[in-house]
Amino acid sequence: MTPEEFRIAGHRLIDWIADYRSRVAELPVMARTSPGEIKAALPAAPPDGPEPFLEILADLDRIIMPGLSHWQHPGFFGYFPSNGALASVLGDFASTGLGVLGLSWQSSPALTELEEVVTDWMRQMTGLSDAWSGVIQDTASTCTLVALMCARERSTNYSLARGGLQAEAQPLVVYVSAQSHSSVDKAALLAGFGRENVRVVEHDSEYAMVPKALEAAILQDLEAGRNPCAMVATTGTTASTAIDPIEAIVRVAKQYGLWLHVDAAMSGSAMILPECRGMWQGVESADSLVLNAHKWLGVAFDCSLYYVRDPEHLMRVMSTNPSFLRSSADGRVKNLRDWGLPLGRRFRALKLWFMIREQGVAQLQNRLRRDLENAQWFANEVRKAPNWRVLAPVPLQTICVRHEPLGLEGEALDAHTTAWVERVNRSGAAYLTPAILEGRWMVRVSIGAIPTERKHVAALWELMRREAEGWTQS
Amino acid sequence: MTPEEFRIAGHRLIDWIADYRSRVAELPVMARTSPGEIKAALPAAPPDGPEPFLEILADLDRIIMPGLSHWQHPGFFGYFPSNGALASVLGDFASTGLGVLGLSWQSSPALTELEEVVTDWMRQMTGLSDAWSGVIQDTASTCTLVALMCARERSTNYSLARGGLQAEAQPLVVYVSAQSHSSVDKAALLAGFGRENVRVVEHDSEYAMVPKALEAAILQDLEAGRNPCAMVATTGTTASTAIDPIEAIVRVAKQYGLWLHVDAAMSGSAMILPECRGMWQGVESADSLVLNAHKWLGVAFDCSLYYVRDPEHLMRVMSTNPSFLRSSADGRVKNLRDWGLPLGRRFRALKLWFMIREQGVAQLQNRLRRDLENAQWFANEVRKAPNWRVLAPVPLQTICVRHEPLGLEGEALDAHTTAWVERVNRSGAAYLTPAILEGRWMVRVSIGAIPTERKHVAALWELMRREAEGWTQS
Repeated sequence: MTPEEFRIAGHRLIDWIADYRSRVAELPVMARTSPGEIKAALPAAPPDGPEPFLEILADLDRIIMPGLSHWQHPGFFGYFPSNGALASVLGDFASTGLGVLGLSWQSSPALTELEEVVTDWMRQMTGLSDAWSGVIQDTASTCTLVALMCARERSTNYSLARGGLQAEAQPLVVYVSAQSHSSVDKAALLAGFGRENVRVVEHDSEYAMVPKALEAAILQDLEAGRNPCAMVATTGTTASTAIDPIEAIVRVAKQYGLWLHVDAAMSGSAMILPECRGMWQGVESADSLVLNAHKWLGVAFDCSLYYVRDPEHLMRVMSTNPSFLRSSADGRVKNLRDWGLPLGRRFRALKLWFMIREQGVAQLQNRLRRDLENAQWFANEVRKAPNWRVLAPVPLQTICVRHEPLGLEGEALDAHTTAWVERVNRSGAAYLTPAILEGRWMVRVSIGAIPTERKHVAALWELMRREAEGWTQS
Repeated sequence: MTPEEFRIAGHRLIDWIADYRSRVAELPVMARTSPGEIKAALPAAPPDGPEPFLEILADLDRIIMPGLSHWQHPGFFGYFPSNGALASVLGDFASTGLGVLGLSWQSSPALTELEEVVTDWMRQMTGLSDAWSGVIQDTASTCTLVALMCARERSTNYSLARGGLQAEAQPLVVYVSAQSHSSVDKAALLAGFGRENVRVVEHDSEYAMVPKALEAAILQDLEAGRNPCAMVATTGTTASTAIDPIEAIVRVAKQYGLWLHVDAAMSGSAMILPECRGMWQGVESADSLVLNAHKWLGVAFDCSLYYVRDPEHLMRVMSTNPSFLRSSADGRVKNLRDWGLPLGRRFRALKLWFMIREQGVAQLQNRLRRDLENAQWFANEVRKAPNWRVLAPVPLQTICVRHEPLGLEGEALDAHTTAWVERVNRSGAAYLTPAILEGRWMVRVSIGAIPTERKHVAALWELMRREAEGWTQS
């Protein structure tokens, strides 16, 4: 494809995307595809000769679109908001169009320096002190893996340069809560700690970690000759938006020399609101933290922000220095390959830069405040309705609810819950993801897609009542 | 930004990118920026209010562009080709515009199923048997890390479910060569093996690993009570395109139960040419392999293809199953979160699909053959010229050269090499990256940017002669 062919095809595609975003509300939110259906519609072998671009675009409509769940839909209340604000979409287009790569500073200096600047903007926007250094990674899963590897190396005084984790005499232990994200568990196992050395610390009735229980677990491990290494606290857990008490946890972590990683993947966006920052009070004493600019805040996936207090340590764990990547600028510049797992990186700073500039901080704050108000409104409606229950505190934009008709409990209640959610999702008007809380299915209403206004939230509530209550009456 | 504002801004940006790709040849290939220059031109704090899109676009021209090295330039001979074929760029635009996420099959079924189909197309295109299953990851560094984690878990019969790597009595050992990519070393250290358990196997005069030396190293480790776990062989090393003899290596790996990971990150693209497949003869007996569709082949970064023989094992090592990600389709579908490190994923299959369809296999093959011919032509020119030397075999598109004027050796020769390369790069007409081979600096000429034709290669050769020979005459 020549640049001139690209120009023509590109204009078509821009219109296609603009049309999609305009009419997305008319599409069923959740894909109704059966397993294997899309695959069966695609040729099993690649074409030998070229196909016209318009045919590819037509197949996008014909084959792919019916198989999508629409994350940018105003009726998307599932998982978490993964907003692709249109200004950030354009920033991402610029990145792909330029096709430059950041292996080292030298390989495209502006890529590295803009990333330094915009991660620092985000640091300021979230009220963090200038003792933090930021870098863009793909996802929070990766950031947490990096954090636990760094913790491991600090506790073992860089065992990677010697016999590795396998040469350690005392087993290292990682502390999490049952409400931590599944990626935390996965990271601990992949970093080599082993499930027997992942300690699940007790939480309170609001699903927040109990610092005293953390300390008790540490003491027990010390007594047994194990080596407490790291702990992961969450600001806004995935299932129920629980807020672990960072300040109290940090005191325990410091006392026993643990690495503290703060997972604010979802709720970190809220820290651009000064009134929310109390939720991670104490974060300044943590060692690392992650917040996903690609969730509620609105940057097109992927744009996970990883902040550390000690970048020298991060670089020492992650660095490589092959000859073909050395340049005369080394030592005076940041080489981002030494700040994470991959060597190559896209120019991801552009999408964050475009969005912050096109929106401005105040407008981003307004949107998040709109969602917080919608969440409070929704929670109040639920609380007022007979047989409905809000199951957890609502500090931010996710509400955990259950419809509990009289006489229904245990597995019958579970069956009722999953059945009415399925009907809501099949309706096409909204998409919800159920989850398990304290052993029972409940429904997470995650508000915060960019196009979601009060009227969409109100429509969701009506739909939920119809599908849940209608069934019990029949 | 509303969809209608996006439409207008998007058309501007498409033109901006089309213009960029049309005129990129006129720009200096390598950025001439000094460290800190870009940073100093950017505001230290984010804007509170919104800024017009055209101002952002103007800053892209004014501040960012002078700080870029242009990877899509016909004079780009540095590092490796990282092509962003324009059809794949459009596929990436569609992905970002749609903003759907693949956490599980259910979260957007077409994302998963198209990925299954196009990774299978690539399997067929590279002549692999249908015993391989593919998945798209971000980079080869990540794939190699995943491979070594999987090797570790196979050797320890899933120690992650017990005491982890730290509970192993016998240290696990990984075998590499001095020519392996730096990411292999990094992956082994991050996976917890430790530097003392990374064995560097001897290579021959053509920089290929010596299978007998591998076997000797394994026997020595067994004798010392260590546990040989994995080995990484490379088809086309980064510094000199050395081809490790997979077939002989595989026999050793099988005999001693080692996991064999094949790193074909750069050269894997060549396997779409049947005449090149002898280079990885034996690959069918490997356990995992990586090839980067985002390099020479032309898919916009990032699109690293990871193939495994035993997907059940991969899933067992990588899987998590939290309630909020379960769906009624589980068990009948592929959940790609269980195929790698991150939970979330972009719709990356689109860019591979767009490119293969818009080009067709034959046209992709033709372009790669053009580059192979250019490399042979260039190597012959170098061989014919007095005082110039081709330092390694040229099986593909990278040529290792040195200008060796009479009487210059040792550090003086190094100084000469790095000085003339610096002059070539400063000229703006071409970009080369030097590297160290056998302790001495040399120059890698990596041919294969999409717009690079014979005339650009010829112009490079002229420029190299001028800058290298002119200096010695003065």
